[in-house]
Amino acid sequence: MDALERLIGELSRLPGIGRKTSGRLVYHLLQQSRDRMLALAAALVDVAERVHPCRGCGAPTEDEECSICRDPRRDASLLCVVEEPSAVAVLERSAAFRGRYVVLGGRLSPLEGVGPESLRIGLLEQRLATGEVREVILATNSSLEGEATATYLQQVLAAYDAVTVSRLARGLPVGGELEYVDGVTLTHAMTAREALR
Amino acid sequence: MDALERLIGELSRLPGIGRKTSGRLVYHLLQQSRDRMLALAAALVDVAERVHPCRGCGAPTEDEECSICRDPRRDASLLCVVEEPSAVAVLERSAAFRGRYVVLGGRLSPLEGVGPESLRIGLLEQRLATGEVREVILATNSSLEGEATATYLQQVLAAYDAVTVSRLARGLPVGGELEYVDGVTLTHAMTAREALR
Repeated sequence: MDALERLIGELSRLPGIGRKTSGRLVYHLLQQSRDRMLALAAALVDVAERVHPCRGCGAPTEDEECSICRDPRRDASLLCVVEEPSAVAVLERSAAFRGRYVVLGGRLSPLEGVGPESLRIGLLEQRLATGEVREVILATNSSLEGEATATYLQQVLAAYDAVTVSRLARGLPVGGELEYVDGVTLTHAMTAREALR
Repeated sequence: MDALERLIGELSRLPGIGRKTSGRLVYHLLQQSRDRMLALAAALVDVAERVHPCRGCGAPTEDEECSICRDPRRDASLLCVVEEPSAVAVLERSAAFRGRYVVLGGRLSPLEGVGPESLRIGLLEQRLATGEVREVILATNSSLEGEATATYLQQVLAAYDAVTVSRLARGLPVGGELEYVDGVTLTHAMTAREALR
C-alpha cells in the first residue's frame, strides 16, 4: 500500500472521520507545506512519548502528577469522578468546582466489554483511603452507561459511610426553552423541582 | 505550551476541525494505544517525505510519474484539466474517462491571492507542446471560481486552434428530482437540453 493510502487509512480510523473526509484532509495537507505535516507528526510523537495518566487522578499529563493534583489550593475534601479527561476540561472552564478529580477512563459498558476492572476505581479507593475526602460527586454522563457507572460507584462507596455521595443535578439547560427539552429530562426537572420559598 | 495543547492546536488547523473536535480526537487517541498515534505520525512523515507532484500531471505520487501518466493504454490525445487530485480520484472511480490529466493544484481566486502563476498551467502547455493532444476537457468545478478558471484556460488554449476545448455538461443529477434542483442549474439544463430525435 502506498504512503498516501496508508495515511488516509490511519486518519479514517479516528472517530467521525470517514474515508472521504480523510482524503480531503490529506489533500489539504499536501497543498500546505511539508512542514505542516511534519509538525503534526512531531506533535503526535511527543504526545505518544511524553503524555501518560496522572498518578493522582488519571488525567493525561506530562508530569508524574497533573497541575490540578499538585495545586495545594485545591480542596482535597471534594472529589469529582468523571468518565473522560474532556469532562475535567469542561468543569475547569466553568470554574464551578475547586476540588480534585478522578478520571475513570471510560464507563461501564458490558456490550463493549468494559467492566469495573477497566476503570480507575483503584485510584478512587486510594483517594478515599487518605481519609481526607468528605464528598464524592459522581459526574459521569447522564447517559444510560453513565448512570449505570454511577450506580456501581455508589455501591463501591457504600463502604465509606462518612463520605457524602452526590450526583450533578439534571434538569433544564439554563437559558433553554421548555419546548425543546426531551420528556425524560422534563420529568426529572419536575420531580427534582427546587423550592423557591 | 505542553505536548497535548500543541497536538490539539495542530489538528485544529485542518479544515472542518475546530478546537472541540480536535480535543475529542486527541483524547480518543490517548485512550487507544500509543502505537496508533505513532503509526499516524509515521504515515504523515512518509507522505511528507515521499509524496510529491507527478512530473506529468501534478497529481501526488511517490514516483517520478504517477501510474496514470505511466500507463501506455491511456489515451494521450484526451487531456482532462481538474483543480485538485481528489477530482482525479472521483473521475477514475467512475471510469468515464480514459485519457490523461493535468491537476492545476487550485483555482483562480483573486481574493485569496491565487493567480495563474500559482496553478500548473505550465504543465498544461507542456502537454499541448507534444502535439498529441486532440481535446482538452476543462473539468474545473462548477463554482464561481472554477468557472473563472475555465474561462481563463480557454483564453490560454485559444493559441492552440487545432485542439478542441470542452467543459463537463451541467444539468440535472441523474436520478435527481426537478423539485430539488436549484434555479441556475435548471435554467442551464433547459438551455442545454439534448434533442431526442
